[in-house]
Amino acid sequence: MERLAKQLRFLQEIDQLKGVLRQTALLDRSRRENSAEHSWHLAMMAVTLCEYTPPGTDVRRVITMVLLHDIVEIDAGDTFLYASAAQLALAEQAERAAADRIFSLLPADQALLLRAVWDEFEERRTPEARFARALDRLQPMLANYYNGGGTWLSHGVTADQVLAKVRLIEEGSAELGAYARQLIAAAVGRGILAPAR
Amino acid sequence: MERLAKQLRFLQEIDQLKGVLRQTALLDRSRRENSAEHSWHLAMMAVTLCEYTPPGTDVRRVITMVLLHDIVEIDAGDTFLYASAAQLALAEQAERAAADRIFSLLPADQALLLRAVWDEFEERRTPEARFARALDRLQPMLANYYNGGGTWLSHGVTADQVLAKVRLIEEGSAELGAYARQLIAAAVGRGILAPAR
Repeated sequence: MERLAKQLRFLQEIDQLKGVLRQTALLDRSRRENSAEHSWHLAMMAVTLCEYTPPGTDVRRVITMVLLHDIVEIDAGDTFLYASAAQLALAEQAERAAADRIFSLLPADQALLLRAVWDEFEERRTPEARFARALDRLQPMLANYYNGGGTWLSHGVTADQVLAKVRLIEEGSAELGAYARQLIAAAVGRGILAPAR
Repeated sequence: MERLAKQLRFLQEIDQLKGVLRQTALLDRSRRENSAEHSWHLAMMAVTLCEYTPPGTDVRRVITMVLLHDIVEIDAGDTFLYASAAQLALAEQAERAAADRIFSLLPADQALLLRAVWDEFEERRTPEARFARALDRLQPMLANYYNGGGTWLSHGVTADQVLAKVRLIEEGSAELGAYARQLIAAAVGRGILAPAR
């Protein structure tokens, strides 16, 4: 039972992700989204949109990746997508330290396996990681569009900044990338996203 | 793009699951848990505890099942685990109507596929459904234990009622069932769960 006790200790620890708030609001605009429910939504996107992965993609691995990619925020907090390069570098360091601590709650063999999934997401070299990253970029874009501008307006984000993120979506899925480009054009047309500077 | 538009419409609709509150509190006791973050936690349990499934279990299907099993609560609300038989029967009817409506937002072929996963969870006849159900029963038990009694105390639940739910856990996994029995005995010993009536 010692092995199971360690696994349950890990599952207890990650309950805290429900208290980490992101910049993005829920679609009913009642409050900000937390990282646990965001991760659920990404996993549902992976389930629903898996037909847009390249042939041979391991969809279970994509789902696992989006489920656990944010648990480091328990220690490191959420970093805004349009933070400065210096802020992003600091966040990356904090997230690595968090991954060291949190995954090590698990039995050693399983800590290695799940840490490898987390590293793979961060490194974005496999089709699985690129698709997972594409979903992570697309989700707040959709939320801002549905929310009439959301963080684009509240943080003064412009279309060129959003288009720079679309490249990450295209690397994961041509179809989702094309859709994101249309969405950005429509958002500029509706006046809920400022045109490129 | 019509197919993708339908899929995104479904994904937009299910954002509302983040606003459905369950009886169980977060482990920091700051507020009640919502069904989206609960579903994320169950999926992380499936990832972490998949070694306790019977050989040959399709773990991707288990994960998909726990991710989508609660989306019907958008229309039907959450039903407390210890509700009366009459309340549970009413809830079941409302949940079927909700499944009809929500899955039909998807392209027809995909609506059938995901509805079949939802039906499978409800019917609990496959090893995948039994394991998914076991996780769904174990999670609030763990939360009540960590929370010093939680809904056991606030709703006057007694050990015999909790033990009746353990049978559902044992059907999904002998190891998790054995652990749950230990947990209940420990909870009675600590005075955070009333003994059997």
